[in-house]
Amino acid sequence: MNDTKKPGKLPGTPKDSHYAKLRRAHRDEKAGGTPAFRQRHKLPPGEQAEDGLVRLYGLHTVRAAMDNPSRKIRTILVTRNAAERLGIDDIAALPFTAELAEPRDIDKITGSDAVHQGVLIEAEPLKPKRLDALGDTNLVLVLDQITDPHNVGAILRSAVAFGAGALITTTRHSPTESGVLAKSASGALEHIDQIEVRNLADALGQLHEAGFQTIGLDSDGPAELEKTFSGEKIALVLGAEGKGLRQKTRETVTALARLDMPGAIRSLNVSNATAVALYAARKFLK
Amino acid sequence: MNDTKKPGKLPGTPKDSHYAKLRRAHRDEKAGGTPAFRQRHKLPPGEQAEDGLVRLYGLHTVRAAMDNPSRKIRTILVTRNAAERLGIDDIAALPFTAELAEPRDIDKITGSDAVHQGVLIEAEPLKPKRLDALGDTNLVLVLDQITDPHNVGAILRSAVAFGAGALITTTRHSPTESGVLAKSASGALEHIDQIEVRNLADALGQLHEAGFQTIGLDSDGPAELEKTFSGEKIALVLGAEGKGLRQKTRETVTALARLDMPGAIRSLNVSNATAVALYAARKFLK
Repeated sequence: MNDTKKPGKLPGTPKDSHYAKLRRAHRDEKAGGTPAFRQRHKLPPGEQAEDGLVRLYGLHTVRAAMDNPSRKIRTILVTRNAAERLGIDDIAALPFTAELAEPRDIDKITGSDAVHQGVLIEAEPLKPKRLDALGDTNLVLVLDQITDPHNVGAILRSAVAFGAGALITTTRHSPTESGVLAKSASGALEHIDQIEVRNLADALGQLHEAGFQTIGLDSDGPAELEKTFSGEKIALVLGAEGKGLRQKTRETVTALARLDMPGAIRSLNVSNATAVALYAARKFLK
Repeated sequence: MNDTKKPGKLPGTPKDSHYAKLRRAHRDEKAGGTPAFRQRHKLPPGEQAEDGLVRLYGLHTVRAAMDNPSRKIRTILVTRNAAERLGIDDIAALPFTAELAEPRDIDKITGSDAVHQGVLIEAEPLKPKRLDALGDTNLVLVLDQITDPHNVGAILRSAVAFGAGALITTTRHSPTESGVLAKSASGALEHIDQIEVRNLADALGQLHEAGFQTIGLDSDGPAELEKTFSGEKIALVLGAEGKGLRQKTRETVTALARLDMPGAIRSLNVSNATAVALYAARKFLK
């Protein structure tokens, strides 16, 4: 790592006033001025940025965000090394505020546990869509109150890998977009529509009308997963670990299905169960 | 929660001198003595106990440890509520040091992020076995330098669920038993043999001699996973995220295989990939 601290030449726009302020503070500090920039970096790990922005970090995550036309990035903090790995020749040419940093500057924001790989962005969260925006897809994933960011991130990654067309969650008890979630998703966040619905049972009904078979995963389900598949469109419905699917959800799905597990433990981590179910559904649908 | 702090009546044995000391300190403190017990609880989250012991917490994890005859538990710290949920009628009758606690006492040890559910044990780590101790099994899992405790915990859980007979790791770069790993494993740690080998390529050779087909997972593998299965015994070989399998491992396995993923992202979280591979292998072997 041969990153050196040197602010890039950056155009000032009305949009970047917040970061511009920080940048000026930083320059002031180097010139013996106020240490506001340093203070800024003392935010606790994982915390959301101000103004409802999210902080995302890691090479895959940031690359995917930069490639996503729907993602509004406000600022980037990047090491020389990471800029090179991201293929950024001139950070001043980026259409948002950009600043060169050293790894420890980013550590201070994300906490040193976060594998930020030398890059952090502040961006507007992606806007969840409504169910009637569901495109032409034969596989969707429905989460019944799963909120753990590591699990939801891994689930998003598997959902994109196996070609699911949307992730449907409830407006309440839905996962919050965050750096941890995005890092676990390894870029997947930018590749799948997130749909929020007020009432999950109503949404399942709409999916039925759209030709979907809705399969709820349940370790005590009466049928083995693959035996429940039929038709041309599948929605897999997953509940939170420990709690499982809510009663109303269980009553509404087309079928409750289990994964056959011969071992001494009969439930999987929810992201692992989701990956297996997606794999099996994708194999069936082709 | 109606847990109240009240030390149990506990027999003193030479083995429990460490905790006995703490217990005495605790009584001393209540009687106006030294606050050593409180100090003890100020250990940083996730840290191993002294004397090479591990700290395990959570109801499933502790229940499985108590049910495992090979697991030597030294001490338990448990709330009244958790004791009831674990079916412990009389903590004084336990064959190891036991103490009633309040949730916040355990918080202080595990950190408040850990979902300890009111119970913490200190125990000897399980002794890894040698490859020649591999029992009669037709499915094993081989980890090539995967160490992330959340991933390894989830992998252990899936391995047990799908009836794998052992988890084989290298002596160096192997996962360390810890509270985080055990919690992610949700009891699975106690249900599967862990085998450590010095040289992974040699171990793969021994597996071949024992009739195993060794399949290395690789997102660029030439064959689709299920098409590589043959024979009656399968060893699935997984590499760390990002790094993948080491060159020597790639050269030694019977086959390199990929999971078919039609989406924009072509790799899964390693525990998710492992779950899918175990599911497919178990389906093939039956």
